[in-house]
Amino acid sequence: MIIDRIHGPNDIKKLSPDEIQMLPREIRDYMIHNLSVSGGHVASNLGVVELTIALHLVLDLPHDSIIWDVGHQCYTHKILTGRADRFQTLRSEGGLSGFPDPDESQCDPFVTGHASSALSLGLGMCRARELTGDDGKVVAVVGDGALTGGLAFEALNNVGELGRNFLIILNDNNMSISENVGGLSKHLSTLRTSEGYLGLKAGVKNSLERLPGGDRIVESIHRTKSGIKQLVIPGMVFENMGVMYQGPVDGHDIDAMREMFTRAFSFDGPVIVHVLTEKGRGYEPARRHPARFHGIGPFDEETGAVEKPKASSYTDVFSTVMSKLGEREPSMVALTAAMKDGTGLARFASEYPDRFFDVGIAEEHGVTFAAALAQQGLVPVVAIYSTFLQRAYDEIMTDVCLTGKHVVFAVDRAGIVGRDGKTHQGLFDIAYLSGMPGMTLMAPKNKWELSDMLRFAVCSMDAPVAIRYPRGEAWDGFHEKRSPIEYGKGEMLLSSDPGSHGPRVLLFALGTMVKTASEIIDLMADEIRADLFNARFAAPFDREFLEEHAGEYDIVVTLEEGAATGGLGEHVGAFLSDIGFKGRFVRINAGDGFVTHGDPGYLKKELGLDAQSIADVLRSL
Amino acid sequence: MIIDRIHGPNDIKKLSPDEIQMLPREIRDYMIHNLSVSGGHVASNLGVVELTIALHLVLDLPHDSIIWDVGHQCYTHKILTGRADRFQTLRSEGGLSGFPDPDESQCDPFVTGHASSALSLGLGMCRARELTGDDGKVVAVVGDGALTGGLAFEALNNVGELGRNFLIILNDNNMSISENVGGLSKHLSTLRTSEGYLGLKAGVKNSLERLPGGDRIVESIHRTKSGIKQLVIPGMVFENMGVMYQGPVDGHDIDAMREMFTRAFSFDGPVIVHVLTEKGRGYEPARRHPARFHGIGPFDEETGAVEKPKASSYTDVFSTVMSKLGEREPSMVALTAAMKDGTGLARFASEYPDRFFDVGIAEEHGVTFAAALAQQGLVPVVAIYSTFLQRAYDEIMTDVCLTGKHVVFAVDRAGIVGRDGKTHQGLFDIAYLSGMPGMTLMAPKNKWELSDMLRFAVCSMDAPVAIRYPRGEAWDGFHEKRSPIEYGKGEMLLSSDPGSHGPRVLLFALGTMVKTASEIIDLMADEIRADLFNARFAAPFDREFLEEHAGEYDIVVTLEEGAATGGLGEHVGAFLSDIGFKGRFVRINAGDGFVTHGDPGYLKKELGLDAQSIADVLRSL
Repeated sequence: MIIDRIHGPNDIKKLSPDEIQMLPREIRDYMIHNLSVSGGHVASNLGVVELTIALHLVLDLPHDSIIWDVGHQCYTHKILTGRADRFQTLRSEGGLSGFPDPDESQCDPFVTGHASSALSLGLGMCRARELTGDDGKVVAVVGDGALTGGLAFEALNNVGELGRNFLIILNDNNMSISENVGGLSKHLSTLRTSEGYLGLKAGVKNSLERLPGGDRIVESIHRTKSGIKQLVIPGMVFENMGVMYQGPVDGHDIDAMREMFTRAFSFDGPVIVHVLTEKGRGYEPARRHPARFHGIGPFDEETGAVEKPKASSYTDVFSTVMSKLGEREPSMVALTAAMKDGTGLARFASEYPDRFFDVGIAEEHGVTFAAALAQQGLVPVVAIYSTFLQRAYDEIMTDVCLTGKHVVFAVDRAGIVGRDGKTHQGLFDIAYLSGMPGMTLMAPKNKWELSDMLRFAVCSMDAPVAIRYPRGEAWDGFHEKRSPIEYGKGEMLLSSDPGSHGPRVLLFALGTMVKTASEIIDLMADEIRADLFNARFAAPFDREFLEEHAGEYDIVVTLEEGAATGGLGEHVGAFLSDIGFKGRFVRINAGDGFVTHGDPGYLKKELGLDAQSIADVLRSL
Repeated sequence: MIIDRIHGPNDIKKLSPDEIQMLPREIRDYMIHNLSVSGGHVASNLGVVELTIALHLVLDLPHDSIIWDVGHQCYTHKILTGRADRFQTLRSEGGLSGFPDPDESQCDPFVTGHASSALSLGLGMCRARELTGDDGKVVAVVGDGALTGGLAFEALNNVGELGRNFLIILNDNNMSISENVGGLSKHLSTLRTSEGYLGLKAGVKNSLERLPGGDRIVESIHRTKSGIKQLVIPGMVFENMGVMYQGPVDGHDIDAMREMFTRAFSFDGPVIVHVLTEKGRGYEPARRHPARFHGIGPFDEETGAVEKPKASSYTDVFSTVMSKLGEREPSMVALTAAMKDGTGLARFASEYPDRFFDVGIAEEHGVTFAAALAQQGLVPVVAIYSTFLQRAYDEIMTDVCLTGKHVVFAVDRAGIVGRDGKTHQGLFDIAYLSGMPGMTLMAPKNKWELSDMLRFAVCSMDAPVAIRYPRGEAWDGFHEKRSPIEYGKGEMLLSSDPGSHGPRVLLFALGTMVKTASEIIDLMADEIRADLFNARFAAPFDREFLEEHAGEYDIVVTLEEGAATGGLGEHVGAFLSDIGFKGRFVRINAGDGFVTHGDPGYLKKELGLDAQSIADVLRSL
């Protein structure tokens, strides 16, 4: 195999031209084979094989740098920088990360797990190198989706001042830019019918025709209906921001890209090269279903078939309840930030298209926009993953909470998400949401409670409210205990047998940890007299219950799948100090670090979030 | 006075044309007279008098809506909506807010205190009204500075789909857009020398000349050096995003604006009208010194003279130390988000221009950019106000903390800021920063400690670190106690007289509250045996001290100028529960609400943050 001869960056330059041409097929086969076992971001990585090869041929890594935005398209880059032999460990504990990671390789300058950061990062590297006299080149590879994020625009607005050595590659997956960069496509018709702009457009066309080779450009504009948008308008946006625009170029033609990238570095200023790639390239199932093969679990290499999960997920439950609520509550609308499928809103979107909004990768705008919808009397349900909602911290605080808007946040992927790792674990939402004045934060113990909480949030509240729920299978336990949701109140689920012995323990558990708490009670049946209290609300938590009953316990234990600082355990611990609780206090949580990638069960054990680990803690008291 | 006849929205429409023409002068005189006593945002409000009048003549408020971005330019709007009689209460406790506020008037749909939100808010209102069949018009007045925020761009990208009834007014203060919308101005020279674009530009000019009145447009382009940027290029940016561009129009010509606004609403889609206004218009001191008269305290109405504060502020101290450190540490750089003067970085910027970055109102980009500077070995000091830094929560977490970058955050305006009110109080930084893994957060007790902490953060650390310090006068107390900063350690400042009596109290005070704690000790000298501990670090706080010594006290009191939830008191309270502290615990903080505008001393008393109130709490135990 050619791959076997690539042990580090620049080894690719030792290959013959024939070998370079054979390399993409070999890399694709290698990726598909491994990803069919590990799962991962299949479609996007199949799309950038040639692009990555062309960059590695033009650049001198790690002196030069590539920043992938978003970072999950870095698999070929990992292979070409000497990590092929560990590729089968991808996304598993102790193995390669599914994202760039400086801890893994000098060729990964940053961890780029949240979209739209590459332009700022690349600009920072270039500016610093200008100051320090380093001539290293920087390439930011930005997906067309990532460009819709405001952070990217802020950077673009600051990029113009820069000298050479900064190349921005717009990785445009099969023309999807016209959908993503919203305004561009939809409003060209208005511009066309507006008299003044007809003249302006004609002028642009005339001047294009006068350019060398301009005829062919104009001809190609006419060939495709969307051509004018792709060719003239997007380029103009960038040029107007002060960045030279080149392209588009075929993202599967290595030689054409090498030539264009080399030329781009000869210009005296930042350049954007528009590269057209095809998601899922070279693997028919992924090419046909790029959305399904975006982030995927193990699949059948031959057929591309994915084993359907047996049990429904919390996301499925959310999807179903939204559909039902949509019928009952005509003022309810739903919003997502480029995650229609991931958040389970696809069904709502197809059933109530007028009441569904996908704002693109623009969490900030989504939240502020939702605040205005609420101001007008609608009830927006904003479904954004826990970690991505961080982007909108200020908007939730200032536009939603400050004026008490009834916006419902469906915070999916809250807690340990597993294989996507450090930038994707949903560990901070309890801390950042519960500190916002007027924000209510709930977490369901099981699938029924998610349904009840969503109904409560939409129908019974008139203030900012969030529900956090995890990735993966929705638990069915305690399904017989379906007591109505009461604002700020938890529920006693299990009371200890008065005849049992051992210290009296209160397990004050939030969301997923109710299940764990019930396992602890089974494990320690003969050792403690434990009551299981389902907290339900992280904010406001059930102070009244604690004030009245905490004193009855020898040990109060809080359990949550979230960060320690700012978490429910801290709220409760401080409150117990406030009220002069004299017993022992233990808080179980995910600690205060970033949590790496791996199997969720493994990670929870590592963090001491499993019943056995917690039982050991309680025994050691 | 004409103003006396305006008791509510639309009253202005009853005025005669002559009276309309006289109104701007009267409003300006009224504003200047009142603002000279109360202080406020003088220059920007003087600039939008005619613009506001024109809007009120065209619109039907409150059925139609105006959203001011940023909201501090709303004074004329307040006067024209029947709040003139309370204008002298502006920004004082119980009086009018300096920002729009729905609690004050139905004509203020939102509180817009943080920049760049108006497009999202306006778009949300319009979309909701399309769904509910309301035909109310919405106008978003956006400053050229606010347009540099990514949130505005995210909204702009979503605006194109909209039907009519959304008018965006680009309030361009005297051509400053060319400075603010960065890339546009700087890189036009590159475009000019690039062969292809010369042709393209000629085509644009040709087609302009063919338009009715196009000659005059082209002529005016040639008249001013920056004309082409103002007229052709910014318009193209908006058009390319799907928004029709109209203008520019003289922002002091009421009739011209009325005509253009009326026409804008006849187009079938969102329209941006480019309005040129002059900051400080009609008041010579403000016109000549718009930066000084941006946000200003009381001034002499006749001369515009401002009384110089006697004592130096924390910002002054920061400014001086940055200048000194800049000489000693060549790798140190400084960054601000459109607040060069406010943050005190103007001096550094003039002394080390190559090492200073102003990214515009783009806190997110600023932080991510700084992370990349740090990755390249520079030491960025990022000076952003506490409340505005909220915008970059995710970027601090993901780009700075996740990879442990040595970025120094100078968090000015932390704590009660006073008259700017709810959106500007710096109360949440302890909560949002101390929960970020690896973040160090300090707060100085006095001016000397700010200096020592800044040196410590820049020279002795190699990890994310923030220093929070308040608006206003830098305290000089305890200047004789200048012990070196040690990582994660507080200092015992005052130990109680062993001969004194009463309960033993530990005052565990952060930053400004050290001063308050010393006042409590004076007040309660005969009642308690109090030790004053200067916490210095909010994260990591001095666990070792507490573990060793908390048990010696009857009462532990935490004191901080920040929100309750997620604050230092909560961290300490939970820790005391962890270690089984058996005494009383009291936490003093700013509570869990938003804090309104008013005199800082008054507000602190209201919040119970003054020595007397705290003494009363301690007595009541």
